[in-house]
Amino acid sequence: MPLFSTYEYLQRLEKTKESMEMLGIDVLLITDPANMNYLSGYDGWSFYVHQTLVVLLEEEQPYWIGRAQDANGAKHTAFIDTSHIVPYPEDHIHSDARHPMDFVASFLKDKQKGNRRIGIEKDAYYFTAKCAERLESGLPDATFVDATLLVNRVRIVKSEQEIAYMRQAGVLVSQAMRVAMDSIAVGVRECDVAAKIYHAQISGTPQFGGDYPAIVPLMPRGEMTSAPHITWSDDRYREGDAVIVELAGCVRRYHSPLARTLVLSPTSPNVTDLAKVVVEGMESALAAVKPGVRLEEVEQAWRKVIERYGFQKESRLGYSMGLNYPPDWGEHTASIRRGDQTVLVPNMTFHMIPGMWLDDFGVEISESFRVTENGYELFADVERQLFIK
Amino acid sequence: MPLFSTYEYLQRLEKTKESMEMLGIDVLLITDPANMNYLSGYDGWSFYVHQTLVVLLEEEQPYWIGRAQDANGAKHTAFIDTSHIVPYPEDHIHSDARHPMDFVASFLKDKQKGNRRIGIEKDAYYFTAKCAERLESGLPDATFVDATLLVNRVRIVKSEQEIAYMRQAGVLVSQAMRVAMDSIAVGVRECDVAAKIYHAQISGTPQFGGDYPAIVPLMPRGEMTSAPHITWSDDRYREGDAVIVELAGCVRRYHSPLARTLVLSPTSPNVTDLAKVVVEGMESALAAVKPGVRLEEVEQAWRKVIERYGFQKESRLGYSMGLNYPPDWGEHTASIRRGDQTVLVPNMTFHMIPGMWLDDFGVEISESFRVTENGYELFADVERQLFIK
Repeated sequence: MPLFSTYEYLQRLEKTKESMEMLGIDVLLITDPANMNYLSGYDGWSFYVHQTLVVLLEEEQPYWIGRAQDANGAKHTAFIDTSHIVPYPEDHIHSDARHPMDFVASFLKDKQKGNRRIGIEKDAYYFTAKCAERLESGLPDATFVDATLLVNRVRIVKSEQEIAYMRQAGVLVSQAMRVAMDSIAVGVRECDVAAKIYHAQISGTPQFGGDYPAIVPLMPRGEMTSAPHITWSDDRYREGDAVIVELAGCVRRYHSPLARTLVLSPTSPNVTDLAKVVVEGMESALAAVKPGVRLEEVEQAWRKVIERYGFQKESRLGYSMGLNYPPDWGEHTASIRRGDQTVLVPNMTFHMIPGMWLDDFGVEISESFRVTENGYELFADVERQLFIK
Repeated sequence: MPLFSTYEYLQRLEKTKESMEMLGIDVLLITDPANMNYLSGYDGWSFYVHQTLVVLLEEEQPYWIGRAQDANGAKHTAFIDTSHIVPYPEDHIHSDARHPMDFVASFLKDKQKGNRRIGIEKDAYYFTAKCAERLESGLPDATFVDATLLVNRVRIVKSEQEIAYMRQAGVLVSQAMRVAMDSIAVGVRECDVAAKIYHAQISGTPQFGGDYPAIVPLMPRGEMTSAPHITWSDDRYREGDAVIVELAGCVRRYHSPLARTLVLSPTSPNVTDLAKVVVEGMESALAAVKPGVRLEEVEQAWRKVIERYGFQKESRLGYSMGLNYPPDWGEHTASIRRGDQTVLVPNMTFHMIPGMWLDDFGVEISESFRVTENGYELFADVERQLFIK
């Protein structure tokens, strides 16, 4: 069963088609799995083979083109009619001779679209260089236009139903983070903490369960806290370790991410001092959030605080997020950073993650929130502090 | 700390360079995260931004090029010298103006490689059409050659140390599958079973913990068993449900996948009959496995059995697998299917997954194994049968 009403899917398609018209494209080929889900409802771990959603300007419903064995999954999860579910044969899987995009090219030729302006997501994860090459050779009369992020931009303002899922994800991330902060202790193995986090993320609450987050728990320890994308090992926590935990709750593919840092005593004053700066900077940035404000102004509020303490941060302060699939829960559109002119409107949703990674340690303390009519609403509810044990 | 000896990494690079010479390429750009790990040891959930390993024919060590904040992770996990770790600035992240492949192009020009034959992985997951476009425009004098699967083919025969990790992964997948078969029951929520599976996969045993598998537990239920890549929901299991569970144990990025099917009584004779055919067919195929045999012969042994019962299977019977990252644990090289001429040699490793998906139900019962001197060794140890409760 699709998660949203047909009306909501059609509204999303309408907005997408408006953007298509602005770019002068008649055909849009969507390969980003989050965008495929957003416009059709399709959900499944099938993005490891090539698949596409075809949006035609003059047809109300898109076409799902995917692997034959996934067509039943499309029938169950997408709102579109069965006649719009177009499976390609299994002999296109990991084959030298036949590529799924050859099939897509033939489909478009059959639809008399071989000579049109066709939008493709050139920098989307699963749209490989080979996909472009095969489309270009199969459709020599077409003009290809880069439509990367076209649908991502439509996704940036959430509906009430989407916000409801993100609030639930906020409940789950709070629960999972508390489990993490409670379980990390001297002598405990990192993998045992990771296992408990997963259990809390997925089992959820008696009212609703959790979906798999697009990123696994990131939990670097000790010197590795200077490397934000490290996962876990079998090692045991030791006295004096700092541990960064970044993870998300996920409900029906909607995320609320959160990061906290914990120190096992004895604590280095470097870490506690840096944590104070991070919290003060983030609170100043959050206070700047309201409709009408530009994202660069939010970043500026943060920067003013940390510069007063002699710190700098080269990487961005946060990013728009929500619906997604591995390998990322970010939407790749608006970033909380210098130069980003995006003007905040209600129901934009962000992960503000003022991670500071110095040479041999780092601190991350973050919040996920939506923009409200006059400020912001946090999704999670975990003490905004350095945890010390 | 790198997982393997420097000697093993250098051997892998030597074999890679032999393949490069056969293709007449001087420079190989690796973006598949499993291939990056295989040739350097680099491990981190950073493949959601562009990153590359550059192999130059005349230099012993490759260069890691990645995001600035991941350079510390590379220093910790890769065997290469610090001078071979080349970070690109944060302003290249999700920017319209600067793409990480612009940086790679400049790097190659500085190395006087701008006019060479350069191998790229055109159909690797994270090598987007935009990556190719930016490299081509940054290096107008270079000739680009498709080197997709070049390193994957080097990976196909495992070392003793790799096999040791896959045996450990086999212990974990057996444990996780038993947890799944024990927990699924009428009235239980799917998400609670998924949570227990995760806990077993990650917590592991007292001797070793688990890493995150490249694919989440797939566990379609009821009519959805006809759709193999469905995950889980909050729904409760009901009498008469069939449930397919496909999951992997993972140790240090090495996988052993496994599938089993369970039916909650009352049982449909359609399912029990199909399960018997699947087991008999798989056993016939396994009996055909030994060095010197071609993969198509293994598939033929399976096909003979199922055709006798009036069944057909369009999709392949299995695939080579081992080291990997999301979204797939398969290696995309050898497949157990008609026409695959790959000749088996010891320490090739496969997931044989004779999934049969009919219109409204399906059965999957699988095994992971390595080829031995005279047959095969299974990685998992779970009864090869339809589970009935």
